[in-house]
Amino acid sequence: MKRNLLLTPGPTQVPPQLCEVLGRPIIHHRTPQFQNFLKEAFDGLKYVLQTQHDVYLLAASGTGAMEASVCSFLSPGDKAITVEGGKFGERWTELCRAYQVEPKVVEVPWGRAVSPKVIEKMLSEDKDIKAVYVTHCETSTGVTTDLKALGEVVKKTNAILVVDSVSALGVIELKMDDWNVDVVASASHKGFMLPPGVAIVAASPKAQALMAQSKCPKYYFDLRKYKKVVEKTDTPFTPAIGIVIALTESLRLVKETGLDNLFKHYERLAKATREAAKALGLSLLAEESCISNVLTAINLPEGMDGGKVVKRMRDTYGISVAGGQGDLKGKIIRIAHMGCLDEYDMLTGISCLEKVLKELGYKFKLGAGVAAAQTYFNENQ
Amino acid sequence: MKRNLLLTPGPTQVPPQLCEVLGRPIIHHRTPQFQNFLKEAFDGLKYVLQTQHDVYLLAASGTGAMEASVCSFLSPGDKAITVEGGKFGERWTELCRAYQVEPKVVEVPWGRAVSPKVIEKMLSEDKDIKAVYVTHCETSTGVTTDLKALGEVVKKTNAILVVDSVSALGVIELKMDDWNVDVVASASHKGFMLPPGVAIVAASPKAQALMAQSKCPKYYFDLRKYKKVVEKTDTPFTPAIGIVIALTESLRLVKETGLDNLFKHYERLAKATREAAKALGLSLLAEESCISNVLTAINLPEGMDGGKVVKRMRDTYGISVAGGQGDLKGKIIRIAHMGCLDEYDMLTGISCLEKVLKELGYKFKLGAGVAAAQTYFNENQ
Repeated sequence: MKRNLLLTPGPTQVPPQLCEVLGRPIIHHRTPQFQNFLKEAFDGLKYVLQTQHDVYLLAASGTGAMEASVCSFLSPGDKAITVEGGKFGERWTELCRAYQVEPKVVEVPWGRAVSPKVIEKMLSEDKDIKAVYVTHCETSTGVTTDLKALGEVVKKTNAILVVDSVSALGVIELKMDDWNVDVVASASHKGFMLPPGVAIVAASPKAQALMAQSKCPKYYFDLRKYKKVVEKTDTPFTPAIGIVIALTESLRLVKETGLDNLFKHYERLAKATREAAKALGLSLLAEESCISNVLTAINLPEGMDGGKVVKRMRDTYGISVAGGQGDLKGKIIRIAHMGCLDEYDMLTGISCLEKVLKELGYKFKLGAGVAAAQTYFNENQ
Repeated sequence: MKRNLLLTPGPTQVPPQLCEVLGRPIIHHRTPQFQNFLKEAFDGLKYVLQTQHDVYLLAASGTGAMEASVCSFLSPGDKAITVEGGKFGERWTELCRAYQVEPKVVEVPWGRAVSPKVIEKMLSEDKDIKAVYVTHCETSTGVTTDLKALGEVVKKTNAILVVDSVSALGVIELKMDDWNVDVVASASHKGFMLPPGVAIVAASPKAQALMAQSKCPKYYFDLRKYKKVVEKTDTPFTPAIGIVIALTESLRLVKETGLDNLFKHYERLAKATREAAKALGLSLLAEESCISNVLTAINLPEGMDGGKVVKRMRDTYGISVAGGQGDLKGKIIRIAHMGCLDEYDMLTGISCLEKVLKELGYKFKLGAGVAAAQTYFNENQ
């Protein structure tokens, strides 16, 4: 039997405890029984987001949460800053354009993070900018944005700070309230270790005020409809019942571990993986100052076909990692650290990467990557 | 242990075979392995829809499929007929208004079906009408619309016939191609016996031509994005992987049974339930000429609080049925026949209804409903 290990930056592995919940017969959603689950999900998400604000659950994947975060807050003709440092930053721009919101695009080289100073300057030069759209962890590059610093900048203006934390929520810190983040868009299939199908949006009072004025055409992604029933612990449309129920169990696991322990755990996996890459003579795509613990993007040896690496690891050996997107297609591989992964999963992934690198003719000492990761793990319990 | 029997018109019971699939670890969606599942889902849905047209799968609940069926085909300022004979018909009107499409609303008394002649007249008087939005089975009333007759009318015009078959697909016949239905919107959690989370849209070439001209703002529900990748057996955004995989298994069960056998099975359950209601001295909400086999809406005795009936059946005895919506709130109960239900489930539901009717003071001979249903079942094997 071939292994099926997902080291992909979403969907992530679903642990057996959550598989069991997903396999249960479902209940009807307009019942006190389901309301209990929904309340638990809202409370658990507020714990992870470190927020007191409203949380809304939509039956959709992450892009649905992002779309709701554009069309529910803005109006045609509004201006918004979008930060493009990878594929998911570009999605903010595309979403703004789809709703005739004018994006002021900040292009950041892939592998680097936006400077809060750039945003500060733009906001001070144009007081009409209604929102700043950024990506918490840019999944295409493995870069983390400094949300705390951006929050300091944006909170002084009328604009809202909107964050795509689809891949980062529950994996790295996000103090929504303390950091003055107004909107967070996320989903079930990354840090929460569940199948895709539940989209998450949290909104501050400042964002909710904008929501009331928004004129973009919308229906299913109209967060006003969700806000209207959230206090009755209800959803306006049929929710993804099965995944919502499993989400309560996932959040229970997160709470049992504790956020700090969880973040340290992922950091340890990420750092060991970086050590392994270096020991194999491979460089990292993200700059050190903004490198993410959510996933590690590794530059492959010059001339090697990255598509082949991914395909071979997956189809021959059963270990799924991700390749590059956009201009990075074929040039990198991305190994995720989120979800129910431990040090042995990382060693498995690195070992398989070594095997395939050897098969494709790259010269290095077999075992060097695994040994470096092992050393890091043993020295950092 | 209390029973948990869902006789609700969605979500429906998830049978053990599908629970097992839903509880499996998931795989990544950008892989040949998932493509095989996606292909199987597309093929199976074409079998159920009796169509050769494109089928698109979205991670959303049924309303998402309906929204995509408005914003992907029309443009602001367009005119469309919407038929309101219940809560879900009203949703078409709301969706049109959300996108500044002008709805020409046909109001039909709840419990009756629209006359194709009315639609024919409207279409002949206004050649600018772009679409006709109807509900296959109106879940709030248990009425089936005669799609074949409507198709005959609409096919002669430039308008497209768009059908909400969320609750009906796989339960009663829908010959998409033969009947000239241009768009069908459906979902995973009714006839397909799965949790909510997958929305289904099928579109004819006539509808696809409109799609190319549509100017409504959209992104996640932009069916052009789905069409672009459907031939590569892909989805533009992360699909609801777990439910899509389980859908292939559900479709296998449907194929094994055969559509005709399935439709006859549901018809038998519906007819026995109607006999039971009559034997209890209760009338049916839907007119006989358009009564649906998807669910049965039963008028409760004058003055009885229908909310109490539903609550007591569910919370005290573990049998979930649905109450009335809108003006029918508290006045009816709705018993579904779709999904993995058999004659014994119907007898269980009727028996529990009898128990609660007795408790609430309604005068009738205990056992009369069950006996009538049993008799129907035994005489119609």
